[in-house]
Amino acid sequence: MGSIDEHVLTLGTLNPNVLELQYAVRGPIVIRATELEKELKAGVKKPFTRVVKANIGDCHATGQKPITFIRQVLALCNYPDLLDSDLFPEDVKARARRILDDCKGNSIGSYSDSCGLQVIREDVARYISERDGYPSDPSHVVLSTGASDAIKSVMTLLLTAKGGNDRAGFMIPIPQYPLYSAAISEYGAYPIPYYLNEKNKWSLDVAELERSIAEARPHCQPRAIVVINPGNPTGSVLTKENIQEIIKFAKREKLFILADEVYQHNIYAEGAAFFSFKQTLMELGSPYDQMELASFMSASKGFMGECGYRGGYAEVINLLPEVRANYYKSISAKLCPPISGQAVVDCVVNTPKPGDPSYELFIREKEDVLAKLKEKAALITQLFNSIEGISCNEVAGAMYAFPRIYLPEKAIKAAEAVGQTPDSFYCFALLEETGICTVPGSGFREEEGTFHFRTTILPPVEELREVLTNFKTFHLNFLAKYK
Amino acid sequence: MGSIDEHVLTLGTLNPNVLELQYAVRGPIVIRATELEKELKAGVKKPFTRVVKANIGDCHATGQKPITFIRQVLALCNYPDLLDSDLFPEDVKARARRILDDCKGNSIGSYSDSCGLQVIREDVARYISERDGYPSDPSHVVLSTGASDAIKSVMTLLLTAKGGNDRAGFMIPIPQYPLYSAAISEYGAYPIPYYLNEKNKWSLDVAELERSIAEARPHCQPRAIVVINPGNPTGSVLTKENIQEIIKFAKREKLFILADEVYQHNIYAEGAAFFSFKQTLMELGSPYDQMELASFMSASKGFMGECGYRGGYAEVINLLPEVRANYYKSISAKLCPPISGQAVVDCVVNTPKPGDPSYELFIREKEDVLAKLKEKAALITQLFNSIEGISCNEVAGAMYAFPRIYLPEKAIKAAEAVGQTPDSFYCFALLEETGICTVPGSGFREEEGTFHFRTTILPPVEELREVLTNFKTFHLNFLAKYK
Repeated sequence: MGSIDEHVLTLGTLNPNVLELQYAVRGPIVIRATELEKELKAGVKKPFTRVVKANIGDCHATGQKPITFIRQVLALCNYPDLLDSDLFPEDVKARARRILDDCKGNSIGSYSDSCGLQVIREDVARYISERDGYPSDPSHVVLSTGASDAIKSVMTLLLTAKGGNDRAGFMIPIPQYPLYSAAISEYGAYPIPYYLNEKNKWSLDVAELERSIAEARPHCQPRAIVVINPGNPTGSVLTKENIQEIIKFAKREKLFILADEVYQHNIYAEGAAFFSFKQTLMELGSPYDQMELASFMSASKGFMGECGYRGGYAEVINLLPEVRANYYKSISAKLCPPISGQAVVDCVVNTPKPGDPSYELFIREKEDVLAKLKEKAALITQLFNSIEGISCNEVAGAMYAFPRIYLPEKAIKAAEAVGQTPDSFYCFALLEETGICTVPGSGFREEEGTFHFRTTILPPVEELREVLTNFKTFHLNFLAKYK
Repeated sequence: MGSIDEHVLTLGTLNPNVLELQYAVRGPIVIRATELEKELKAGVKKPFTRVVKANIGDCHATGQKPITFIRQVLALCNYPDLLDSDLFPEDVKARARRILDDCKGNSIGSYSDSCGLQVIREDVARYISERDGYPSDPSHVVLSTGASDAIKSVMTLLLTAKGGNDRAGFMIPIPQYPLYSAAISEYGAYPIPYYLNEKNKWSLDVAELERSIAEARPHCQPRAIVVINPGNPTGSVLTKENIQEIIKFAKREKLFILADEVYQHNIYAEGAAFFSFKQTLMELGSPYDQMELASFMSASKGFMGECGYRGGYAEVINLLPEVRANYYKSISAKLCPPISGQAVVDCVVNTPKPGDPSYELFIREKEDVLAKLKEKAALITQLFNSIEGISCNEVAGAMYAFPRIYLPEKAIKAAEAVGQTPDSFYCFALLEETGICTVPGSGFREEEGTFHFRTTILPPVEELREVLTNFKTFHLNFLAKYK
């Protein structure tokens, strides 16, 4: 490698937005966790025998089994010669044929339209209609490479292509899922943080939204509000009243609503329910039902957890036709989302019906996954709240807990001494001593002076008990050490 | 839908970069072609019975059959229960097991690292090493969601996040593949067009590169040169000497080289051969072998044509370590490319070997595809050159012909009268009269005052003969009409 002077790209010439971008879910702690895995493999002695990757909502990585119906449909789509075998139920064959019939040349190796295969867009629209009780138009459904891709495509429309105080402003919850802050950095846009109320189940307070946008207005052009429901990393589930207030606020402030609803199947708390922004906005009637809204969904979460297929979609409503044409034009250069991911989305929104050969197995597998998640959500909430120096809102939905940790002054000083945020310092210590890999709250942003970490609730129940026991021991030792 | 005033997004507020972005391969003619298909289906009488989509390099859509080995491996990766069946050869099972063993939880439903699965990165590196005779480091290989995704990720690194004359400049060939101009528009970067020499097989002339960059310098910061070899849309294959000249030019001008080599398997002309930029740069030795280079490859072209899987990769060499760390950080927020697409890439770079149970069928299928493409490349070159008012360089590689059409003055006037470029006017007429869907040369940019269109060479031989006959009739009628 030559001297720095000879390189086109140095830290001085690299896109400064890339330099600034952070994505904590795969940040330094995760990189260290991967190193530790290699060290263990190489026989290096550690105080633990394996690394627990609780940093990322990666269901199958932590032992969740794929849903048979989904994988059987995918096997046939990939290798249609099997359509003649008697290894597969008839409804699986029918589904694979339906998808293949919509593929050019009957092959999932051909491109689909950029918005996805028509039959799948239709199935998504039917799913949304049945979920909400309001019609959904297939031509408003855009399939994508995971929800992230759809989110970034819609955010791109909202940019101003200007700098300084003319930058597009995106209201984002704090704590937030770092895809949003990463995209805002990459685009040179302006983040408008609004704080969720930890003391009231991470609810969303309109006065706080108003404070937040008022402070940001001199610095940007506020264009959109991001709401994540069920919450990541918070595990909260918004009430309908809360959603109504947010919609009314967005209307007053003329904001595009970006509703991240990828955890809509993951609801655990007694009395909690998922209400979509689409439904709530339709119920409110005019003028709210004419507001621009993008709702995002993923094949990676829910009961299926098929992260690796990169399936997702957006329903984007109330765009002006000429804006929609530009939206679809802008995604056309990406050609299309992977057809396998689209097929998984289809299986998720159009599941086997009672009487179908696959129905019983499907429903058993689905309910088993969701029941276990519910059990783990309760277990983790209860355990965190039983430990000194930790408080944790109920994991009402999604797949994460975001406990608050009360760190001794000495620990905060020790963190400062090594140039880390106190919660990074804590999470690094947790990783090195127990092998448990979490993400520091600072990666999601958090209220000044508070410290958190995010952990998934995904490990199998027995393993999770053990993890929590190890965690408790670590935590109490940590408190004692820095008392 | 409310009045324009109530919308957050109007043509006035929409990201102006999105407004400007064009991607002709899926532009207005293709939208019209899809309408025509619907009209035909609905029984509307047309002068043709079906639409021939010669606008896009979508192999399976035009009848190419998938390679059995690839699809068998994919079936097993998707549904590992089949690993116990005797329907699959042992080498297919071994390959699927190898991929699954590298997946977290042994499931392609889990995320891989953002750069892709390690075993596949290793297989890619081995393929490159064997191709070039120079070592390739797996940690420099980045798997991606099709080549497009990898190209955009590297281009992102090179942006300046500044406007006006401080924008990043990207040298792009004219004619070019419109992904580049679309990305440049989206990023608000500056295109630096250099013209390929149509009179000399679309070769690349260093004097032209020098003219091009000199003219652009006052308007941008030139950061990179894009070279597409084999050429899209030109069908040209660069000689090694030509590649050497480009590398030396890039060195003098301190440019990052973006080598789009997705058609590296598609070489047809007598005496033509594919030379990679990596190999040529290594052969040149110091200081050239220390230059920053990204080479892009895809699972969508070649003999496999698996577009719908969205598999691709980049080999990116000679980055400073701190720049590489930022590169990998910047793609981490995308989580990972689809595992199915990664698995297809693996099958493409690590094919069955002589003696393997799948070898004979694999090699027969592969050679059949490539032999037919070669036959069609010759057929189309010969036919275009036999028609009055058309000249076409030999389709030496890739999957397209880019014939020049000499249009009568009256046709040019008629186009102006309806506000179209002359070649759009021509391609629309071709579509309406024959059902043949091509892309006007203006979509790829072309030298002022020249007119072209791009057509793929993909339809099956017999169909292609018929298409070319219909084309010839149309063309001669068109000339007669506007004489």
